Order: sequence, then structure tokens, then C-alpha cells
Amino acid sequence: MVTRKEDFSKWYLQIIQQADLMDYSPVRGCMIFKPNGFELWEHIQAYFNKRLKEEGIRNAYFPMLIPEAFFNKEKDHVEGFSPELPWVTEAAGEPLEERLALRPTSETMIGDAFSKWINSYRDLPYEINQWANVFRWEKRTLPFLRTSEFLWQEGHTAHATAEEAQERTQKMLEIYAEMIEGLLAVPVFQGEKTPSERFAGAVQTLSVESMMQDGKAVQTGTSHYMGTKFAEAFNIRYLNPDNEHVYAYTTSWGVSTRLIGAMIMTHSDDQGLVLPPAVAPQQVVFIPVGPKKKLPEVLDKVKDLNQALRDRGIRTYVDDSDNSAGYKFNEWELRGAALRIEIGPRDIENQQVIMKARDLQDKEAVGFTDLVAEVEAQLEAMQTRLLDKARQMNQANCYTQIETLEELEAHIAAKKEANEVPGWVLAGWDGTEETEALIKERTGFTTRNIPFDRYFEGDNALPRKDTCIVTGKPACHTVWLARAY
Amino acid sequence: MVTRKEDFSKWYLQIIQQADLMDYSPVRGCMIFKPNGFELWEHIQAYFNKRLKEEGIRNAYFPMLIPEAFFNKEKDHVEGFSPELPWVTEAAGEPLEERLALRPTSETMIGDAFSKWINSYRDLPYEINQWANVFRWEKRTLPFLRTSEFLWQEGHTAHATAEEAQERTQKMLEIYAEMIEGLLAVPVFQGEKTPSERFAGAVQTLSVESMMQDGKAVQTGTSHYMGTKFAEAFNIRYLNPDNEHVYAYTTSWGVSTRLIGAMIMTHSDDQGLVLPPAVAPQQVVFIPVGPKKKLPEVLDKVKDLNQALRDRGIRTYVDDSDNSAGYKFNEWELRGAALRIEIGPRDIENQQVIMKARDLQDKEAVGFTDLVAEVEAQLEAMQTRLLDKARQMNQANCYTQIETLEELEAHIAAKKEANEVPGWVLAGWDGTEETEALIKERTGFTTRNIPFDRYFEGDNALPRKDTCIVTGKPACHTVWLARAY
Repeated sequence: MVTRKEDFSKWYLQIIQQADLMDYSPVRGCMIFKPNGFELWEHIQAYFNKRLKEEGIRNAYFPMLIPEAFFNKEKDHVEGFSPELPWVTEAAGEPLEERLALRPTSETMIGDAFSKWINSYRDLPYEINQWANVFRWEKRTLPFLRTSEFLWQEGHTAHATAEEAQERTQKMLEIYAEMIEGLLAVPVFQGEKTPSERFAGAVQTLSVESMMQDGKAVQTGTSHYMGTKFAEAFNIRYLNPDNEHVYAYTTSWGVSTRLIGAMIMTHSDDQGLVLPPAVAPQQVVFIPVGPKKKLPEVLDKVKDLNQALRDRGIRTYVDDSDNSAGYKFNEWELRGAALRIEIGPRDIENQQVIMKARDLQDKEAVGFTDLVAEVEAQLEAMQTRLLDKARQMNQANCYTQIETLEELEAHIAAKKEANEVPGWVLAGWDGTEETEALIKERTGFTTRNIPFDRYFEGDNALPRKDTCIVTGKPACHTVWLARAY
Repeated sequence: MVTRKEDFSKWYLQIIQQADLMDYSPVRGCMIFKPNGFELWEHIQAYFNKRLKEEGIRNAYFPMLIPEAFFNKEKDHVEGFSPELPWVTEAAGEPLEERLALRPTSETMIGDAFSKWINSYRDLPYEINQWANVFRWEKRTLPFLRTSEFLWQEGHTAHATAEEAQERTQKMLEIYAEMIEGLLAVPVFQGEKTPSERFAGAVQTLSVESMMQDGKAVQTGTSHYMGTKFAEAFNIRYLNPDNEHVYAYTTSWGVSTRLIGAMIMTHSDDQGLVLPPAVAPQQVVFIPVGPKKKLPEVLDKVKDLNQALRDRGIRTYVDDSDNSAGYKFNEWELRGAALRIEIGPRDIENQQVIMKARDLQDKEAVGFTDLVAEVEAQLEAMQTRLLDKARQMNQANCYTQIETLEELEAHIAAKKEANEVPGWVLAGWDGTEETEALIKERTGFTTRNIPFDRYFEGDNALPRKDTCIVTGKPACHTVWLARAY
């Protein structure tokens, strides 16, 4: 097994396959989600569907194939996505009259539908979501994080006013932040993307970004305010109370299966997966120990204990295979079972089990009668611990005192020399694309996002930067710089 | 509004659009599932996922694009699906070296994966399911029932023995029958498809078929036993306990969004949708009545009653729009709200509401204190009533005494003359494709399925047919004949 220090990429590819989350497919850049990998997505879906319901937003489903003409309606949108589109050109043995794109996102299809469905101010806000497969034919792919086909949700809303649309854009980012931190125990950095990193066609793109253990960033969610750009392109107009036909303001927002990759790169270790209990397919694994002839008696007891946990909705697995206990310990560490429960004949005499959390070294003895309560407490404690640990890792790798490009280059070189991660750097930026391009060229770092104002206030405030890291001119923004997936 | 009697197809197209279930899209044969339509699918998904869990079958996700070479591995499969495939031939601005099909089903992709994942008898049975969009470029399309893109689940399993695989094939059909009758209140006819109607590449195809109000059949679910045909095509072999490499036996089974169409055609009436309460997006709709100035007081009370129902998990809607009560009554009949609750100032004085079930004419007064219990009881009663009513409709349209093709033709002509539905006809069949083809040519009726043996036993037994309806020769099978969607 390669370690994270030795080769982070290789380590990642190794554990996701060995832990049975995924497999490669014969189609370039398209992966198979095996049950242990897909279940992680199902927990995300369940959480987010519940939140959508609270927001009064319902699910719909739109066709996957998009007529070429649709892409040409919004200039920025077509420019952004054209290079990555796969096209259907023939069907049922005949060439198509018009090429059909495999959706990279559904703005155009949904824009067209909204233009038919939205007629009056009484129809607004119009808010829907869809869960779908989408396609972006990427040159370099990485399982979960960047695949030619991926799964996501995309929400699309239309509003009567700019303010209301901006509120929705902001609110969805906050919901993403809650979900990614609360469910996946992955800390996020909220902020606004620079214009060059915006969604193709958006007026404003907000993002949550997360730091991996190798210091690189993953954009874990985005929320876009479109102003009236898509409304103008697709003629989404409504009759306002003054009887005027005016354009609606639209938003869109999404998270994808890349969240799974981000979660793994945040928590896992050299022994394998570490998964937050809230999404771990196996929250508890029972491993019988002791002499083989006593096994039936042990399994009898396990059956009762297991049922008691299942009755509480805890996801359990009893490993009664022929493998040795040591083999099983390794196997379930690799697969990221949250809690391991060992139980043998002597434990039964003592009316107890031995319990170990995946992320801790120590084991503890737990009496049979306390088991359910203790398992619930430990699962909750582990969920909190993983988020805290990730926050500490993030904090240790955030650099806020680098003022010039030369200092940044020296920082990166020093970290490389020490085989340490360069992390994220907070920098002043003059707001020009030239500066962004130069930073990228010289360091490989790109702008992640511009933290919201609130991050510059209070006890743990980020320092605002007055001068641009490249030009030394007055900074328009203080921005996170990092290498990114 | 067109009635069912006047023009069943037109009636169907009219109510699904007016009830806001769907809309057409700019892509031929691809429809949009609006929230009220998609929610019907979400209830089916939730039910089936729960059943899968009980069976120990987990969800996975496989790539949508299938290399052309895969299709050529199983001769019957490629012949069956080739005429309907859309192809991706270019991506990211360049032609592809090999065309990629949009999956019509995933047998080939999953067969290839199984060949890698299954090595030993210890890996068997291997059972998974996926929820996915699939494509079949149909010439004639009909929303929900036959669309170029549709949503479905497809289960795929591999087993050590033929018996075990056949048991799984049978078991899934039974689960479909339970779901379609229990959740959708749509009665099913279980049986085996004739060879010409089998899934492309299957050894045996079982189906559940349902009768619509126009007497036509919808195949509502299928379950296929593949023998070792796909195992041989994709080299799915395992090491058995005797250390021999042998082929596994595979199955696949699926239901799709056509279930939604079947459910609507079974229950709905000339006023609009009638939906089984178990899946109705609106189980209860509150409609305030009485003078406008008393409305705030009424809405206050509605708020309490509504919350009490919601606390029990009942899906409710309060229609406090400006429309008249009469308009609302019509609107919610059209949309298939299961129960309508009227409440006005006088009702509040009497501490009661007026409740009406969508499928009944009479209203009843229900006291505030009894409301929750009465709503739950009425929803359950309506669910049962719809299934019973559909069973009666089915029974009235099943003809089991027709012995010759001439009698069948006369039956169809007489029904047409009387503007009545020709229904389904139970017939003897000599087992030849020629006979099937001739029946179709002369009457438009096709073989639906061969009822299982158990349907020929007991009090309500179907009569077994000794002679073929066409040739008069000894019948191999007794088979249902009907026009089909």
C-alpha cells in the first residue's frame, strides 16, 4: 500500500478501488459506482431531498438530449461548454437532422420550459430541482472528482426580482455548506468566484471550496445568479402586477458525485477509508473472535445485539466469514466501517463487547446493556471528531501572511523541499484576469474564491489584503489561492 | 373536455397535461416530468428501494454509454435493440474511434463488469439494481407509456445454479405484482411471454400485464431468466467448490415510468386524474368556502387541522388562492387530489368539515376531533376501493369463451359496433409464431402472456383451452390475447 506522503494520487486511486467503491469502465473517463460507492451518494440524496422539501422545492425530470440550436442562444454558455460536449448524430439507423448534445447541465432545456410555464407574477417564484446524469468530455479524469459522466442535482429557479433571486442563490450555498460540513464532515470555505471562474453565462457564481489532505482544493458546490441573461436568451417573461411583460431573474445551483471524492480525500488515512458515520454504509461491523468451536454461541449473542442496533436504524454488518480476525480488522479498516465490535466467548462471560472507532487507536469495553446507547454516542462523537480534525488540518495549511508573488514561490518551493503541502494562500488581488493568469503560470495556484465579508470580521477574522500579490497595486479583493482538482 | 368514450387517447393526452404531470419537449419523443408527474415516480422508487433492501439487493450505477463492440457479443440482444439505438459519434470536437450507444438496457455493460467481479462460488449470488435513464428511439411515442428516453430500474443478478436464478426471476415478478397492485392499485395478470415476445437474449421472460379502461394491455413489468446466454457472451465464470470454471446463470428485471401511464389509464375518469392515495401528491386538499371577510378566521382553523394531518405524514395542500370554490373543486378533481375538505364559517360553528373522496359522489361531515383518524381511514378505504373497482373492470372485460378466430373477429366487430371495449380474450395456442402472426394480422390482438399454472386451479380458475384458436390443432398453451400499448 502506498501512503499519502509517498504519493497522494496513487494512494487515492488505490483505496477507492480496494475499498470496493468503484471500478473503471470500458468507456473513457466513465466510472462504475459499486454499491459501497453509490450508497454514499444515496445518503447525500436523502439529506438534500429533505432540505429541498423544507424549502418547498420539488423534483422534476427533463430530457437528457439538448438540440444544438439551444446552445447557441446564450453566447457565454455555448463558449463555456462546447469544448466538452458529446453529440448524438444518428438514431435508429438514420442520421439526425440536428445534432443532439448530451446535457452538460440543463439551463437551456429548462430555460425553454420556463418560458412556456411562467406567465404571470403569480407563477413566481418557480423553483425546481432534478437529479440527473450529466456529461463533460474531460481530457484528464479522476474517479468521482472529474469523470466524463457524473451524477448531480441541479436546481433551477425563476424570480420576480433580482433581490429574491440573489437571496435564493445565497441560501442554497448555505444549505450546501450545512450539508457538506454536517453530513460529510468536510469543512467548506464560502465565497464568490472571480469572473474568469464563473459558470458559463452566470452574472455571479458563489462556491463552497474544500481543502484536501494534500492541500489542494475541491470546488464542492456552486450556486449561480444569472440575472436576466438566461431569461433574455430563452424569453422567460411574465406579466407583472402593472401588466408589463418583463424578464424573470434566474438562478441555478448544484452539487455532484465529486463530493464523494472530496470526502475521501479529506478523512481517509494510510489504512484505508475513513467515512463520517452519517454516510458510512457500515456504521458497525461485528467481528467474532476466539476459538472456532465456540463460534455458534458467539454468533447467537451477536444476533441479538445486532438486532437491537438495527431496530434503532443503525447500519450494521456481521462478518461471519472464514477469514481470520486479523484479516477482518484490516478489511474493515480499509472499507471505512465506523465502529468495529469484537466479541468472543470471554466477552460473553463478562457481558461485554470490545469496541473501536475507525479513527481512534484505543479500544473500549462496553457492557451489553449499554451497547445501543454507547454505539449511538460514539457514532455522533466520531462525526464531530472528523469535522474538527479536518478543520484543524485546514487551519494548519492556510497561509495568510504571504504578500508577494516571490514570497508565494518561495513558500511553495520550501514546502516541496520539506515534502509538506503548500496549502492555501490568502492574497490581495487587483481584480484583473492578467494577474490571475500570471499567478497560475508561475505557481500553478488558481483563485478559489473571494471570502464573503463576514469572514473578515470577528475573533477569527481573515486579514484583508490592501495590495495585489502580483502588481503591488491596491487590491480589489482578498482571494484564496490554491492548486485545485 | 373529451370523454373516455369519445376518444380514449385524446382524453389521456388531455388530462396528463392539464393535470400538470408533464409537458412535451423539443426533442422528438422525449417528455418533461413536471413535479406532479415526477412525484408519482418517487413514490414508486421509495417503495421498491425498501423492498430491495429487504431482499438484500443494493443499488449501483453504471455508465450510460455502451461501446458498439459490446452489442455484438450477444447476437439476439443486438438484433433486438439495434433498430432503436441512438449513437454518440463525436465528442469534444472530434469523431470517436468507436460509436457509443445510449443504453437501451445495461445487460452488456453489467455483463462485462460481472465477468471481472465474480470469481468464486463465494461471490454468488451477486445481485444489484440501478435506477437510470434509458433510450429506445421509438417511431410512435406516447407520454409515460412509450418515450424515446424513459426512467426505470433494472436489476441484474448472477447465480450458481439455474434453479436459484429462476427463483429470483419468479420472486421479482411477485414483488412487482405486490407493488403494482398494492401501491398503484392496478391489478396485474402474471404469466410467461411467448418466445416471440421475449426480451432480446432471454431464455424466459415473465411479465405482469395490466388492462386499461379501453381494454388495451400495458406490460407493466418484466423479469427475465437468461440461463447462461449472457454469461457465455461476456465470460461470467466462477470457480465452483470442485475447482472448475463454470458459467453463472443470470437474470434481469425492470419496471419503468410507463407504470405512471398505466395507473392513470386504469383509474382516471372524465373529470380528470384519479390517483391511489398511496402515491397521490395531494392526499388532502383544504378548500375554504363562505364569505371572503370570514376567510382569515377559516384559514386560522385550517392551519391547525392541516398541521395535525401533516404531523401524521399526510400530504396536504391548502388552496387559499383567489379562485372561486367551484373553480377549485374542478381543479383538484382534475389533478386527482384524493380527499377534498371544504370548510366555512358555519362548519367552524359546528366544529366540523365536509369531506369528499375523489372517487365517490357523496360528501360526509367529519367532526374536528375525528378528522385525523377519519382521513387516515378514508385514504386507506379509497386505496382498496380503487383496486377493487379496477378488478371489476378487468373481470367485465375478460372473455374466456371464444374458441375460433372467426368468433374473435365477430366479438371485436360487435364490440366496435356497440362502442364498447373488446377487452382481453383467453385463447388456445398451438405454440407457433405463424399462428401469433396471423392473429395479429387479422385482429390487431397480440399474445400478452401465458398465465401461470396456478391460475387454472381453484374456485376462480381460468378455463384451459384444448385447441388452438387459429388452427384447431391441440393447444400447447392457453394465452391472453389483447391489443397492447
